[in-house]
Amino acid sequence: MQRGWHFLQIPGPSNTPQRVLKAMSSPTVDHRGPEFGKVTLEILNKVKEVFQTSGDVIIYPSSGTGAWEAALVNLFQPGDKLLSYESGHFSTLWKNLAKKIGLDVHEIPGDWRSGVQAERIAENLKQDSGHEIKGVMVVHNETSTGITSDIKAVRKVLDEVKHPALLLVDVVSSLGTTSFPQDKWGVDVAICASQKGFMLPPGLGFNSINKKALEASIKNVSLNSYWNWERIVEMNQTGYYPYTPASNMLFGLNEAIDMLFEEGLENVCQRHKRHAQATREAAQIWGLENQCLVPDEHSDSTTALIVNDGKADILRKIALEKLNMSLGTGLGKLKGKIFRIGHLGDFNDLMLCGTLAGVEMGLELAKIPHQKGGVQAAMDYLTGN
Amino acid sequence: MQRGWHFLQIPGPSNTPQRVLKAMSSPTVDHRGPEFGKVTLEILNKVKEVFQTSGDVIIYPSSGTGAWEAALVNLFQPGDKLLSYESGHFSTLWKNLAKKIGLDVHEIPGDWRSGVQAERIAENLKQDSGHEIKGVMVVHNETSTGITSDIKAVRKVLDEVKHPALLLVDVVSSLGTTSFPQDKWGVDVAICASQKGFMLPPGLGFNSINKKALEASIKNVSLNSYWNWERIVEMNQTGYYPYTPASNMLFGLNEAIDMLFEEGLENVCQRHKRHAQATREAAQIWGLENQCLVPDEHSDSTTALIVNDGKADILRKIALEKLNMSLGTGLGKLKGKIFRIGHLGDFNDLMLCGTLAGVEMGLELAKIPHQKGGVQAAMDYLTGN
Repeated sequence: MQRGWHFLQIPGPSNTPQRVLKAMSSPTVDHRGPEFGKVTLEILNKVKEVFQTSGDVIIYPSSGTGAWEAALVNLFQPGDKLLSYESGHFSTLWKNLAKKIGLDVHEIPGDWRSGVQAERIAENLKQDSGHEIKGVMVVHNETSTGITSDIKAVRKVLDEVKHPALLLVDVVSSLGTTSFPQDKWGVDVAICASQKGFMLPPGLGFNSINKKALEASIKNVSLNSYWNWERIVEMNQTGYYPYTPASNMLFGLNEAIDMLFEEGLENVCQRHKRHAQATREAAQIWGLENQCLVPDEHSDSTTALIVNDGKADILRKIALEKLNMSLGTGLGKLKGKIFRIGHLGDFNDLMLCGTLAGVEMGLELAKIPHQKGGVQAAMDYLTGN
Repeated sequence: MQRGWHFLQIPGPSNTPQRVLKAMSSPTVDHRGPEFGKVTLEILNKVKEVFQTSGDVIIYPSSGTGAWEAALVNLFQPGDKLLSYESGHFSTLWKNLAKKIGLDVHEIPGDWRSGVQAERIAENLKQDSGHEIKGVMVVHNETSTGITSDIKAVRKVLDEVKHPALLLVDVVSSLGTTSFPQDKWGVDVAICASQKGFMLPPGLGFNSINKKALEASIKNVSLNSYWNWERIVEMNQTGYYPYTPASNMLFGLNEAIDMLFEEGLENVCQRHKRHAQATREAAQIWGLENQCLVPDEHSDSTTALIVNDGKADILRKIALEKLNMSLGTGLGKLKGKIFRIGHLGDFNDLMLCGTLAGVEMGLELAKIPHQKGGVQAAMDYLTGN
């Protein structure tokens, strides 16, 4: 028997605000009618500002995985060479998907404890004097490890090596939580989903593409139809879609973007940074090791903490059953070894304090060795900052 | 700019659960149609179990103040003598209302720091050998001071003195948070409202009446119509009302009662007791004096804490503006001297920890002298209990 709010503190889906839920509860409309076209144009203009791009943002009724595939099938053909960087579970899944659809992916192995090292990408690109590598795939914020990579640095090496490969970046758990100026950073394709910084339920996938990417997709002979950018971008000019769009999710998106703008994108990012730091202050007192080993690469949306003796999932079970809180599980090779705290989306100081109290009480109830005082440390940080 | 959940930690209205909001969002119906009659009968049966009475529960589209007046006008005529007990701001308001409608109320003065002393009621009743006193008005849980009175003891003195006065009890902030078996305790009329233990928005008032009260109301020649019990009880037999009932509030009530039953009334009370104790553990560390001086009389739904130098409302302002939390203000003569924490309704451990963190951080930000560690003390209590 659980009472009160469920603390949904996985690293996404994040808690959906009432305003967004309310917008999604509007009556469903004719997606070919005049009103819907107007709303779509409004959304498409606004969403570009979130990605900070002058390019096109394609919004699919899809999951983030669908948006990953969409980016790849628009740009590449089976046999095309791609370079990916293993930052964690999600970079691995994306790479596997690329292989499954016939792409020839070379993965730079990583240790899941640090972000993308741009110089290693540079090494690979330098060796590719024939420019066979068509694209570079990196994950901005690795939700599985709580590690954020330096995308500017990746762009820099591409430019330095003068390599024409397209830069594809997964921003699923960074957009709306962490600064991501797409055009400024020279990202050709940014892939996102609705359930993290956008504060929506899952159900929308995003491909934010610049001119270079769109042109490459037009040249690319690909046997895909549903995901086809050109067709969608063309119909989007008048506010419509070549398929039936997820209208009520779009109403929610419209509201969510308004909320982001009301707060200000920069303030949203600062809020996430502050909550992430407060979480680390707590973790340090608890004596739990952070999965991220590089201080500059701590994620602002997710903190992954190591628990010895495989007790991470016992902690999660207790948090769920006794404290009405969902914490993120360890994924892939981190299964059972870490747990993850999501501190993203529609979130505030007291929700964070409740969350951290849940972790600290969970550690106590699970009899996991730790030092008390983590919540106190977080509160001290929050009141001082 | 506020993000995330608003912590509505005044001592009611309490946080309305999604399930209740959803039930209230059902389409409005014909209040004379067959479906509505069925639902009303279902609700009327169930709500009696909440009051633990075999009597009748009259549900008004009204505030709690309306329900106070309803009880009085049904039972008494201008000039009738009543005995009331000053337990705090709400007992005072109720007394004032009674005087306003012409009743001759004698109030036993109280200190706002302890509950009803039954022996003082006994003294008054003993002196009334002619049984001129027609009713005794007491407040079960004084929301303004966080003090719960012993209703059983009041009944006992009425019985011992063999005084026929009706016992009227305000259970606005106790029902659904604190044990209140109406019939067992011999309460003739219990007055309640929707926005506390019932977890609904404000808008419904309740008079739960036993046979003695109903009969007295029938004999009473009173110039009231809207509030008339007899007329409502009669129409309720078939599931209807003599006025247009607040149908969607009733749908919400139906769902809320289901939630209370799913958890079990006894468990609901235990949960409130545990959260109240955890709150006091925190307050003790902070070094804030409790408005309630009698250990056995601490309220399970509200904790009122004294802040020196009139800084209580500064704390409340900071909590609201910086931490997105509403705390209860001091009422009447306690204005500016205390603040009140509501820990009632649809509430759980992590909401409490967030709430207490908000108070502790608020004290820090308001520069109110206190000792840190209150949240820690509450967490220690919660994990141990």
